[in-house]
Amino acid sequence: MTFKTLPEVAAAMRAFADEREWDRFHTPKNLAAAMSVEAAEVLEHFQWLTDEEAKALPPEKRDAVALELADVFLYLVRLSDRLGVDLLEASKRKMALNALKYPAGSNRGEIRKTP
Amino acid sequence: MTFKTLPEVAAAMRAFADEREWDRFHTPKNLAAAMSVEAAEVLEHFQWLTDEEAKALPPEKRDAVALELADVFLYLVRLSDRLGVDLLEASKRKMALNALKYPAGSNRGEIRKTP
Amino acid sequence: MTFKTLPEVAAAMRAFADEREWDRFHTPKNLAAAMSVEAAEVLEHFQWLTDEEAKALPPEKRDAVALELADVFLYLVRLSDRLGVDLLEASKRKMALNALKYPAGSNRGEIRKTP
Amino acid sequence: MTFKTLPEVAAAMRAFADEREWDRFHTPKNLAAAMSVEAAEVLEHFQWLTDEEAKALPPEKRDAVALELADVFLYLVRLSDRLGVDLLEASKRKMALNALKYPAGSNRGEIRKTP
Repeated sequence: MTFKTLPEVAAAMRAFADEREWDRFHTPKNLAAAMSVEAAEVLEHFQWLTDEEAKALPPEKRDAVALELADVFLYLVRLSDRLGVDLLEASKRKMALNALKYPAGSNRGEIRKTP
Repeated sequence: MTFKTLPEVAAAMRAFADEREWDRFHTPKNLAAAMSVEAAEVLEHFQWLTDEEAKALPPEKRDAVALELADVFLYLVRLSDRLGVDLLEASKRKMALNALKYPAGSNRGEIRKTP
Repeated sequence: MTFKTLPEVAAAMRAFADEREWDRFHTPKNLAAAMSVEAAEVLEHFQWLTDEEAKALPPEKRDAVALELADVFLYLVRLSDRLGVDLLEASKRKMALNALKYPAGSNRGEIRKTP
Repeated sequence: MTFKTLPEVAAAMRAFADEREWDRFHTPKNLAAAMSVEAAEVLEHFQWLTDEEAKALPPEKRDAVALELADVFLYLVRLSDRLGVDLLEASKRKMALNALKYPAGSNRGEIRKTP
């Protein structure tokens, strides 16, 4: 498995699902549920930690978190692919909206809602 | 804002947070919570839909979902950056583990746990 | 452990945490994260199932789901207790708001957002 | 709407759904997704707060959180009802399991995984 760009990751996931006949499982609804479950598994690693502990994870723990982050990424790319969403384009658009919503220079060191 | 690769997205998010002095908010723990909240917002769009409805979203709804997917992506990249995790490398490793766990050819059209 | 009412469940959880000196872990923020993680673990049981399969869980699976539902309940009661929130009172208030938002008789068999 | 016990809450939710013909939406799978989304909405209130800020919510914010907690509670009770799960019985069973897993007196002030 080698991939570097998001379309390559999407193609790898597509081939993986095809080889296993998983298309009937990989509906947008199921993938959205699965991505959300994996995001919670990332959070589970941090739930009882202080911010200081969370910043200084021991290597084997950091490695476990890395694999959970990969799960989120793989479902995210797969779901975007199934919906025909260009993730990079949407992210540029979202960052531009955020830049309007939270202008740099105004309220530095403040946050309102989702930054 | 232009980016194409994951390191470029990470750099854009880093600059965005720096300009707003958001580093004290963007702890790994908070980012894990925020990513999980955004993943739930994606799921919210699908929660009452049938699989058929979910596959045929009207354009404005698909567009709203695209922006939520972007939120997940941006927090995912930011969190990985804060933890020093190489998301592409971890994803390759995870797909290799999945290929062992769910060998192609055996139990086609079946799924056990998280694929 | 015997309890029947919500205040009794809250008291049991309080005693449990006290005996283990868990108050510094059981902050509202951590409990909100933990509750959300447990809710995702409930969802994980259903993520690849059809609605029909989900309605006809085998006994041992239903039992596993019951224990995950209990986890959500226990954190929910504990979090409400820590915040001084009366869960029954808030639920009555919420159902009254929902009754206004979704009047019975109008749009039967329809749902808009979160019902 | 008046209820005091969990069976009364379940009956109120059942009537509410019946009057709106929502049974086809309220499948176990959809309710699990909805509960998980509502739990994330609780978490959203806390995601950028320090533990100190989270303990001292201003009244209007605490009130908003109370209504989100009610949402989790109502879906939890509804989902348990649809699955035929006795939430109080499962919670007693779960607390007994937790008492074995985390014996009082041993590792006080420590926590391993989900308590």
